[in-house]
Amino acid sequence: MNIEEYIRVVPDFPKKGISYKDITPLLQNYSAVEECLFQFEKKLGDKKIDKVIGIESRGFFFATLLAQRLKAGFVPIRKAGKLPYLTEQESYSLEYGQDLLEIHQDALKKGEHVLLHDDVLATGGTAEAACNLIEKLGGEIIQCNFLIELSFLEGRKKLVDKEIVSLIEY
Amino acid sequence: MNIEEYIRVVPDFPKKGISYKDITPLLQNYSAVEECLFQFEKKLGDKKIDKVIGIESRGFFFATLLAQRLKAGFVPIRKAGKLPYLTEQESYSLEYGQDLLEIHQDALKKGEHVLLHDDVLATGGTAEAACNLIEKLGGEIIQCNFLIELSFLEGRKKLVDKEIVSLIEY
Repeated sequence: MNIEEYIRVVPDFPKKGISYKDITPLLQNYSAVEECLFQFEKKLGDKKIDKVIGIESRGFFFATLLAQRLKAGFVPIRKAGKLPYLTEQESYSLEYGQDLLEIHQDALKKGEHVLLHDDVLATGGTAEAACNLIEKLGGEIIQCNFLIELSFLEGRKKLVDKEIVSLIEY
Repeated sequence: MNIEEYIRVVPDFPKKGISYKDITPLLQNYSAVEECLFQFEKKLGDKKIDKVIGIESRGFFFATLLAQRLKAGFVPIRKAGKLPYLTEQESYSLEYGQDLLEIHQDALKKGEHVLLHDDVLATGGTAEAACNLIEKLGGEIIQCNFLIELSFLEGRKKLVDKEIVSLIEY
């Protein structure tokens, strides 16, 4: 099964010149999702994971699934103001200006093994901010995995000391 | 296992007087999530489901998990402007003013059996709008399930002709 066939490329979304990778056709297909989970698990090997962390909101889709497969806990990293309890914050750059990501302070115990997941690795700004949040709480990042990597945006350069896995590359 | 013990009640969030039900402690616990999935599946019985639809964004957590358990497709209903392809829209009322929910037009085939999921049933406004979207596309809503029901807000009254399931009631 070629999972790339389930990605729909939508031109000029969210704005002119951007070729958006739409994963909803993949999510609609049980077998395609199953294949992605199989490939993610294979690339993780026998590394032990305590928490799978997904970045709001498209990162939630596979992060929850991976957490249950690995018998690990799931933790959301959300945009500012969404998490109700005590949080750590980290800013990241947008095209114009900055935005904030948050994690609950009690989401991780020191030394816990973390798998960070998001749907797309683009410039790496959000993934870098997410890694900083995890490390602030004392988590050990075992791997960062992504369904899609836009390699021309060189997001890996922001995550140099991390193990990076992606299933589909553009 | 009493899953209610994994819900953290946060007073005065997102504003004074609201007692917010935080599901993140539950999501952090693999066994508690497994127990919720077991209870959801039990309450669904042997009903056949083609698509599990989750409402952005906390509805995504369990909707993706339920979809894989039931060997069904997953479909997100999102806030306006997030879905890249052709959509149907439906407005719903907020405390002040209105907002829009969207679904991809090709998310469902006519007659497909749908399980709608969200984390919380409160006033029922978003669930009602989501049901309207599903029915616009010709989907047949088999059940609406929620982790938590705030029964004092009487959300069921907006979903009178639907089968409603919730695991925890306040």
